Amino acid sequence: MSYFDAASAVPLHPVARQALLASLDEGWADPARLYREGRRARLLLDAAREAAAEAVGCRADELVFTASGTQAVHLGVAGALAGRRRTGRHLVVSAVEHSSVLHSAQRLEDGGGTVTRVPVLRTGAVTAAAYGEALREDTALACLQSANHEVGTVQPVAEVAGVCGAAGVPLLVDAAQSLAWGPVEDGWSVLTGSAHKWGGPSGVGLLAVRKGVRFAPPGPVDERESGRVAGFENLPAIVAAAASLRAVRAEAAGEALRLRELTERIRARVPVLVPDVEVVGDPERRLPGVVTFSCLYVDGESLLHELDRAGFSVSSGSSCTSGTLTPSHVLKAMGVLSEGNVRVSLPPGTPEAEVERFLEVLPGAVAGVREKLGAPPSAAGGPGSGEGVVVDALGKRCPVPVIELAKVFGDVPVGGLVRVLSDDEAARLDIPAWCEMRGQEYAGEEPADQGAAYLVRRLS
Amino acid sequence: MSYFDAASAVPLHPVARQALLASLDEGWADPARLYREGRRARLLLDAAREAAAEAVGCRADELVFTASGTQAVHLGVAGALAGRRRTGRHLVVSAVEHSSVLHSAQRLEDGGGTVTRVPVLRTGAVTAAAYGEALREDTALACLQSANHEVGTVQPVAEVAGVCGAAGVPLLVDAAQSLAWGPVEDGWSVLTGSAHKWGGPSGVGLLAVRKGVRFAPPGPVDERESGRVAGFENLPAIVAAAASLRAVRAEAAGEALRLRELTERIRARVPVLVPDVEVVGDPERRLPGVVTFSCLYVDGESLLHELDRAGFSVSSGSSCTSGTLTPSHVLKAMGVLSEGNVRVSLPPGTPEAEVERFLEVLPGAVAGVREKLGAPPSAAGGPGSGEGVVVDALGKRCPVPVIELAKVFGDVPVGGLVRVLSDDEAARLDIPAWCEMRGQEYAGEEPADQGAAYLVRRLS
Repeated sequence: MSYFDAASAVPLHPVARQALLASLDEGWADPARLYREGRRARLLLDAAREAAAEAVGCRADELVFTASGTQAVHLGVAGALAGRRRTGRHLVVSAVEHSSVLHSAQRLEDGGGTVTRVPVLRTGAVTAAAYGEALREDTALACLQSANHEVGTVQPVAEVAGVCGAAGVPLLVDAAQSLAWGPVEDGWSVLTGSAHKWGGPSGVGLLAVRKGVRFAPPGPVDERESGRVAGFENLPAIVAAAASLRAVRAEAAGEALRLRELTERIRARVPVLVPDVEVVGDPERRLPGVVTFSCLYVDGESLLHELDRAGFSVSSGSSCTSGTLTPSHVLKAMGVLSEGNVRVSLPPGTPEAEVERFLEVLPGAVAGVREKLGAPPSAAGGPGSGEGVVVDALGKRCPVPVIELAKVFGDVPVGGLVRVLSDDEAARLDIPAWCEMRGQEYAGEEPADQGAAYLVRRLS
Repeated sequence: MSYFDAASAVPLHPVARQALLASLDEGWADPARLYREGRRARLLLDAAREAAAEAVGCRADELVFTASGTQAVHLGVAGALAGRRRTGRHLVVSAVEHSSVLHSAQRLEDGGGTVTRVPVLRTGAVTAAAYGEALREDTALACLQSANHEVGTVQPVAEVAGVCGAAGVPLLVDAAQSLAWGPVEDGWSVLTGSAHKWGGPSGVGLLAVRKGVRFAPPGPVDERESGRVAGFENLPAIVAAAASLRAVRAEAAGEALRLRELTERIRARVPVLVPDVEVVGDPERRLPGVVTFSCLYVDGESLLHELDRAGFSVSSGSSCTSGTLTPSHVLKAMGVLSEGNVRVSLPPGTPEAEVERFLEVLPGAVAGVREKLGAPPSAAGGPGSGEGVVVDALGKRCPVPVIELAKVFGDVPVGGLVRVLSDDEAARLDIPAWCEMRGQEYAGEEPADQGAAYLVRRLS
């Protein structure tokens, strides 16, 4: 079994396990109590906070522990917005943030605030200039991830922080994907993280708020965690989280090099081994362990199932996975192919042999799915004679509309137009992406009786 | 060392430890994922939910896991209020609820809603009649604890649920203190609990919402926990929480009898062993392991410190403990003495010998504190000759104002009046309580230049 979904959760680091076991006996009591069991718990909590703060690069009194990375983001966004209520109710986020940030943004809009979603380049990266354009007089907060969770692209945090700082707008950085590798570049005002992404236990997140940043906790609070996170501290897990963060940081430099080489291998070889694949994300500025690609004429769920049967646990941003029928908002914002999407995220310690075996297994898995779906052979279609062809893919789900398009395309003369009728949301993303991959012209979308008509003109 | 603060947190139950260790290997992955590690985690989560629901007495799909009992209460109250927004924004709570409920109530008031705090009897119990009077046309929710966390009094949940049900008002029951002993009486609409109160790990709470109860999650949500609690599930801890709840329930009947006998012994013997003590809470309808008493002329913090040095970890609702200068809102609502308050809450398994040793140590600890404070001898004061005596206790903290009163009282003739000047909040509670204990008349409170003047008339 090869677990290649570290971007979701990493198995418990041995140091986390050790620290957890040790503190089950020492850290179960209420750290707010004055008797010895309480004092002992308080010492553990204080030491964990010091260690986590050092790894984050902040003061211990700037950092509190939350119940998850998601809770850290929800509290961080709401607290920073409430703290600057008098400035305004405008929020800036990138279009490729984690859902916890986007849900917070939606919440603000539901309550009458406004949100600007900053677009990204085809690599998934934002630009500082785009943030600069999005900032307004009434902007209370800007949010930017340190690195993208689906494609691994590292964001220009320092540049964006510079633009925000110049405008007097605090920047919240969701550092969930990168904290294992090092501290976030300077300039952030609020920072969030999640322990189970670095090999700590679940049930622990981090929320750091720089001194001087206006912050008003959004919900009912109590005396715990500086009045920012209510409820009894998840103490043994907090100790394990802090200890494992130190441990993974000690191993980070060497492991980053090793994983980067392995993911580089996947980036380079997948397009050679598998026809009609688009590797997405920034080839250089990226997380060491993450590589993401999309396979034409493949549905993500079937491919995940094939890979699972072959012993590989990976994730997908395709539609038709995990019960959702819309493709990943990240792939959509990047404008890349979403069908047959696979995210490989290697946990630290992944053996080279497992990556090699993945590269052996993948071509067959993709071919198997394509065959079942009746996909055309690679780069199918010589010059044809049809004209004004209509492909009726109504009621058919990704990747079938693209497959149907590819099947007829060989019969379309150069200069000819194909209208693909589809009511599948993924088609809006995947048909333009297919055109880009094939060097054909995407001629836009027209309303239709059902769904939409996507126009494709043959150029070669 | 004897840890007698089970009402705060109970050391990890052996079954919880076992389940936690087992599920660290099996339950670290994302239960929302389709690959095998995810499916395995999902199976563990589903089984834990089934087990917890059975213990609570609800359907599995009515129960979600939260990060703490406090989070369960905050989400439960806010969700139920939001679900009945159209009915109104009036909330009914008892005056002796846990701070998490009272903070939620405060939050509602801050946002323009209204709250009725139902008074309690001197035992700490509410009456169904008082709830009936508090309910209004615009009441969205009523809250009642299953048992009080400071004095152990069991509340008449079924009767209150009946009154609420008749009025069509849902009842939220905070069952944190009683879930170890059995399910809550029927009639609740929303129920909350906290795993570390029954020997489960910290980081896990329960929130059950009966089908048909209108409920709107208050914050940003995601697809987890039925859209009621956002963020990655704290899985190994959830498994441990559910397993230990089953385990403590299996032992509950026998252990309840045993602890009840031990706390009965403390209830009966403390007033004999220590002069000027008031045992508080209902003598019959009470939690098996909790007994609370207050010692005249003693400050809680010093007594806790003495007991800690003697090897006993207990809690106190007195002022001057844990950094707060106001006495417990519970003792205040009950109208009982707050000074020198001690809550003994025995964890399951407490050996009889430890209780006996506590009863040996307590009298000396109380006497030591009284001596340091210069308290009068027990029931001091024969007939005296003073008249219109004024005791200036300004700037002095509990229990000094009462000590100063007792010192002069012997010189006051029967029928004479003493005015105690005090700016300590605890005096408002403790001077009337002293009068009650001594059979003297508390003649009310008058404004003074600083603080207030408390009037006491000698009757005997």
